[in-house]
Amino acid sequence: MKEGARIVTRKSVAEMAGVSEATVSRVFNNVGPIREETRCKVLEAADKLGYYPNAIAQSFARRKSGNLGVILPYVPKVHLFSTYYFSEILNGIGEQVRELRYDMLLIFRKPGDDNGYIELFRSQKVDACVLLGTTDTPKERKSLKALEEAGYPFCLVNQHFEGEHFLEVDAGHERGAYEAVKHLLDEGFRKIAFLNGPAEYSNSTDRLRGYVRAMTEAGRISQGEKLGRAVPPEWLDTGNYSRTSGYEAASRFFHNRQQIDAVFAANDRMAIGLMQGFRDLGIAPGRDIAIVGYDNSDGARITDPPLTSVDVPFYRMGAVAVRLLLQPDQEPEILASEQGTLYNGRRVQMETKLVVRSSSKGNQA
Amino acid sequence: MKEGARIVTRKSVAEMAGVSEATVSRVFNNVGPIREETRCKVLEAADKLGYYPNAIAQSFARRKSGNLGVILPYVPKVHLFSTYYFSEILNGIGEQVRELRYDMLLIFRKPGDDNGYIELFRSQKVDACVLLGTTDTPKERKSLKALEEAGYPFCLVNQHFEGEHFLEVDAGHERGAYEAVKHLLDEGFRKIAFLNGPAEYSNSTDRLRGYVRAMTEAGRISQGEKLGRAVPPEWLDTGNYSRTSGYEAASRFFHNRQQIDAVFAANDRMAIGLMQGFRDLGIAPGRDIAIVGYDNSDGARITDPPLTSVDVPFYRMGAVAVRLLLQPDQEPEILASEQGTLYNGRRVQMETKLVVRSSSKGNQA
Repeated sequence: MKEGARIVTRKSVAEMAGVSEATVSRVFNNVGPIREETRCKVLEAADKLGYYPNAIAQSFARRKSGNLGVILPYVPKVHLFSTYYFSEILNGIGEQVRELRYDMLLIFRKPGDDNGYIELFRSQKVDACVLLGTTDTPKERKSLKALEEAGYPFCLVNQHFEGEHFLEVDAGHERGAYEAVKHLLDEGFRKIAFLNGPAEYSNSTDRLRGYVRAMTEAGRISQGEKLGRAVPPEWLDTGNYSRTSGYEAASRFFHNRQQIDAVFAANDRMAIGLMQGFRDLGIAPGRDIAIVGYDNSDGARITDPPLTSVDVPFYRMGAVAVRLLLQPDQEPEILASEQGTLYNGRRVQMETKLVVRSSSKGNQA
Repeated sequence: MKEGARIVTRKSVAEMAGVSEATVSRVFNNVGPIREETRCKVLEAADKLGYYPNAIAQSFARRKSGNLGVILPYVPKVHLFSTYYFSEILNGIGEQVRELRYDMLLIFRKPGDDNGYIELFRSQKVDACVLLGTTDTPKERKSLKALEEAGYPFCLVNQHFEGEHFLEVDAGHERGAYEAVKHLLDEGFRKIAFLNGPAEYSNSTDRLRGYVRAMTEAGRISQGEKLGRAVPPEWLDTGNYSRTSGYEAASRFFHNRQQIDAVFAANDRMAIGLMQGFRDLGIAPGRDIAIVGYDNSDGARITDPPLTSVDVPFYRMGAVAVRLLLQPDQEPEILASEQGTLYNGRRVQMETKLVVRSSSKGNQA
């Protein structure tokens, strides 16, 4: 051995940290459950002694894969990157990830399948995760709670889990829906139907709240009953956020056309499908029936007539999620610059904005 | 030591493989250049003896990060995921990656910046790479040749490097352009201008070839000169594949409007910009001037009038690139099922298809 050189062994790390050699190995190989306190003691001892099993383990022990994980729902035949919703959030994530010198690991999970989130962290594939398109199911809650307990950083975008304290970047969908319906009421419409999406998405429920609030305030539906119960059945329908489901809803609304003079759809894709469906049934959107969409996608600008919609800052929501995960110490600055409001210390809500175009003009008013 | 247990050392692997211990380390840490033959000998010996330095090294030596890298060009303010071109290729990649149980590592690189491709492989972030939006520059060629020499698997999509033998999944753009221009000629148009994209993209040059061939065959331009030289300057213009650049080209074409009765644009975004530009100048697309686009994007269906365009199977091109990289042994089946034609053993060409809509109808014919 040369003078000055020294071999730092696993044994000496174990001794200094007051743990077994096996524990040192587990920390550096990141296998099995390790208490955070123990992990810190081992890493501190290793750091002081200059113990690094090799460059890989070093990077691993520091939890630096350099990858931000993005969990995406896998739905066969759906061209995910071609939907405004996902592409805009991914644009925001991509810009920010690039800014912070991370790479972006896209991980597809079939909703309902074993998601293996925790393995992604344990195997050091990712340093943090953004989850898109999650739904509120007992299984999903359980997985997310396990991640939370293990201390792995993750953030949900556009989804809220009531009763939990997950980090969430959401938008004010109740208010967005309220303003959309209020606008229709202001334009003179009275028989306003609502085409919502599935209830497992918190934003569906939020929008229903906004719709019910606006309609109740206007005396169109009666107050005090359980959410949605007071809405006459011909005014409430559900699609799955696809264009086809909007198209199909048109014929159902058509049966009750005497009871309906406007439809608020929970996203633009369904609204665009609705417009096509109505047109095929001989009803001209924007003239015979008012339509309002939601998301303010590219499509809203180019429909005929152009579609009134609610703008949601998906791009910024993606970017904020990344910054909160990778720069948690800068939270106050991030929220201030992005005008996000914090609820319960963990839930960020960004503002939506009604964009009026000609599909909702009140000719009959 | 217990009976039956044994400690397999690096030394015994080195002896069996007939290499130095340093070489064994290099193989397992994947550092420095290693001949494939040597690597195999070491891995075989390690396998026979049951030598695995640890689980991480094992996974690394087998080159199994489980990640397929996707290199994307980073252009500030461009919402990459919102462009038809990238989103469709990513849809195809995503579907196939999911099928083969890989994850997808998106890596943004500013064109012209140090790309560090080889480091992605060396640091085991990826097992293979698909490169999108690369341009033919000396620096890029050099990086790709280095990757090739190191034996790292990569595939280019929609880009050809003349004179190299890189794995490429491309489309028959020369033929696509030829058919677009032939269609305009058949509709009775004679003064056909071409709005191309930048020449660093091989598909731009391919399209120019197709345009020149169709126009030469029809006797509209003279033969025999260097590519493009024979085209009258008022018929040839260049944009950067953005809608804005198409919009701006409209006013340049407007100055020569007596010399032009149709424009073939090298992508739909430019074609859509052109249509808007012409309309703002009082020229009605589809009536006063014929327009043909390229890509057959979603946008082509919803413009007014609907845009004639050339369909490129971007989705399948993305999927084929992934399969060729991750299932190289199935190459013949993949090519047969996807109707790809192989050139030089490494370049796959997929077929394009003209889709006629009303923007190119020959009212004047």
